Amino acid sequence: MRAIVRRAGKLELNENWPEPTPGPGQTLVKVLACGVCGSDLHALDHLERMSEFSRRCGSASGLDASQGVVFGHEFCAEIIAHGPGSTSTLAPGTRVVAMPFTAGPNGMELIGFSNRFNGGFAERMLLSEALLLPAPDHLPPAVAAMTEPFAVGEHAVAMAKAPQDAVALVLGCGPVGLAVIAAARARGLSPIIASDFSPVRRAAALKLGADIVIDPAVENPYGRWSEFDVPADLAGRGVAVATGRPMRPAVIFECVGAPGMLQAVIEGAPPLGRIVVVGACMEADHIEPLMAINKQLSMEFVFAYTPDEFALTLKRLANGDIDGAAALTMEAALADTPQAFELAKQAGQHVKIVINPQR
Amino acid sequence: MRAIVRRAGKLELNENWPEPTPGPGQTLVKVLACGVCGSDLHALDHLERMSEFSRRCGSASGLDASQGVVFGHEFCAEIIAHGPGSTSTLAPGTRVVAMPFTAGPNGMELIGFSNRFNGGFAERMLLSEALLLPAPDHLPPAVAAMTEPFAVGEHAVAMAKAPQDAVALVLGCGPVGLAVIAAARARGLSPIIASDFSPVRRAAALKLGADIVIDPAVENPYGRWSEFDVPADLAGRGVAVATGRPMRPAVIFECVGAPGMLQAVIEGAPPLGRIVVVGACMEADHIEPLMAINKQLSMEFVFAYTPDEFALTLKRLANGDIDGAAALTMEAALADTPQAFELAKQAGQHVKIVINPQR
Repeated sequence: MRAIVRRAGKLELNENWPEPTPGPGQTLVKVLACGVCGSDLHALDHLERMSEFSRRCGSASGLDASQGVVFGHEFCAEIIAHGPGSTSTLAPGTRVVAMPFTAGPNGMELIGFSNRFNGGFAERMLLSEALLLPAPDHLPPAVAAMTEPFAVGEHAVAMAKAPQDAVALVLGCGPVGLAVIAAARARGLSPIIASDFSPVRRAAALKLGADIVIDPAVENPYGRWSEFDVPADLAGRGVAVATGRPMRPAVIFECVGAPGMLQAVIEGAPPLGRIVVVGACMEADHIEPLMAINKQLSMEFVFAYTPDEFALTLKRLANGDIDGAAALTMEAALADTPQAFELAKQAGQHVKIVINPQR
Repeated sequence: MRAIVRRAGKLELNENWPEPTPGPGQTLVKVLACGVCGSDLHALDHLERMSEFSRRCGSASGLDASQGVVFGHEFCAEIIAHGPGSTSTLAPGTRVVAMPFTAGPNGMELIGFSNRFNGGFAERMLLSEALLLPAPDHLPPAVAAMTEPFAVGEHAVAMAKAPQDAVALVLGCGPVGLAVIAAARARGLSPIIASDFSPVRRAAALKLGADIVIDPAVENPYGRWSEFDVPADLAGRGVAVATGRPMRPAVIFECVGAPGMLQAVIEGAPPLGRIVVVGACMEADHIEPLMAINKQLSMEFVFAYTPDEFALTLKRLANGDIDGAAALTMEAALADTPQAFELAKQAGQHVKIVINPQR
């Protein structure tokens, strides 16, 4: 079958990638849509380092980056056939999404970063039958494929445990930041302040639920807290700051993931601010712990999502609580995947690019 | 009066430091005991940088490090006289402790790091009458003076919000680490694992409530979690880790405050570990945020204490719940303060050194 293979830092179309065959508990699916993720862009250049890093973090998956790997972990697909011993709850032809894990002989492997299971930038793939969630037919596959990135936002907001009167600041409105905005809005957090250099991304932030968007080239994103009065019914619960004026608690979602951002947030955050680190900074970074101590900041480092959060996100995309299409800026055919990666790297031009492997 | 003055990176005895006079709301006290704190040691060399740093953190205190400063913020004293408009609730002769803040014309100033109010390494000082807490006469002044450092531990443990089944690891058994151990024990946390290179400090850790002490030169302090079974009544609430075996949640108190410690904790912590950063690292530091993200760690940076925590700590020292004397390794006369600082810098020889300014 056709697949986009990453080998030695390059992507190329392979017309003869081995056809997958479903084993016990596995389901063969036809990939209808698969999104390009920031981690794919990074892995294209640095899969060797990422694999070594996973080992240092205690992962046993043992990805061999010297072999060809098919990326793609944000997908929507259609069931072709179940493997042996299937429960066959979902009929062939059913449109599905799933968390990107498939059980193999060495345990769960992360689809899209596995030597054993190809990811969604291919015509077909194997999923774990137990993880399949039916996606309603009215949901376009390119939007259903965004369940995965939007679930990242749902998890980040759940882990934030933001108090009712919190003021949310979302730094960076790429796919991760937009997912946080959508989840924060779905949970009723308000106001939501969002910051990004790109006008394309700021517009998407407004569509997905931000109340205020800031261009950090023009305005300090940390300057708005004091505008928000403590609601009368919550007075006394606000944080008293050095000025003596009560202030609503700040929850800052760091969704940029570039070196220097953590220290910038530490400097910008108000006392007792809560920082949720969602953006994955791939390099070692500098911080001044003493400043975080002086302000008594907290940092929650978050990753991925739970099965419940994944299912809830699909429901929210399906019923329109989250306008997934607002984050979709391009669809492309499988052969155009390498060019799509190039476009996605030019931060600010695009938000989410989704590949259709059947084209 | 006699005072130890810090000027240009040196401490010297000044026989003619201006005698303080209590203004409205202030109380003149005779200092009976004052502890040497790690922040004093750092300030001796780096007060200029600390003052600049405070300004960057938004402090308005405006300490001028080029002038002479009298350190000392961990004190026990005896009331001499109240200033004008006093409530005079506590009679002259009453032994007291207090949070180290005195109200001046520019707001609250931190005693021991102020140009206006001298700290406790002096015969007399001014305190805010409203903050005075009577200390029982049976409590030796050198132990009562430890209310301040032990309150730091009380606050850190309160901010940790450790679940009932948490396993606590305390890294570093200097005064801060010992205060954390004592507070964790007073709150019923168990087990408490404590790590320090110094046998003197490990012995103090055991006296103050550690269940297990580890010499990190001999044993990996992060290797003990798996020893602790999940209690039957809490089974199912433990954290499931990659091994599939449930594990009790880990709460790690970082009380060393040296560069490199945060990254070491990030590498050593188990998934979903909670890190409470109590030790103040005075320099910029390196971390790998991606590793903290992969493990979904949380970091709570904590500082100082609340008035309630300070009062509770005094009560615990007074009723013997905390054996403050276990942390006291030396008492010295005022003139010996410069030598006491030298001894305190040799980490591992001493825990807490307390000065008696009346000698």
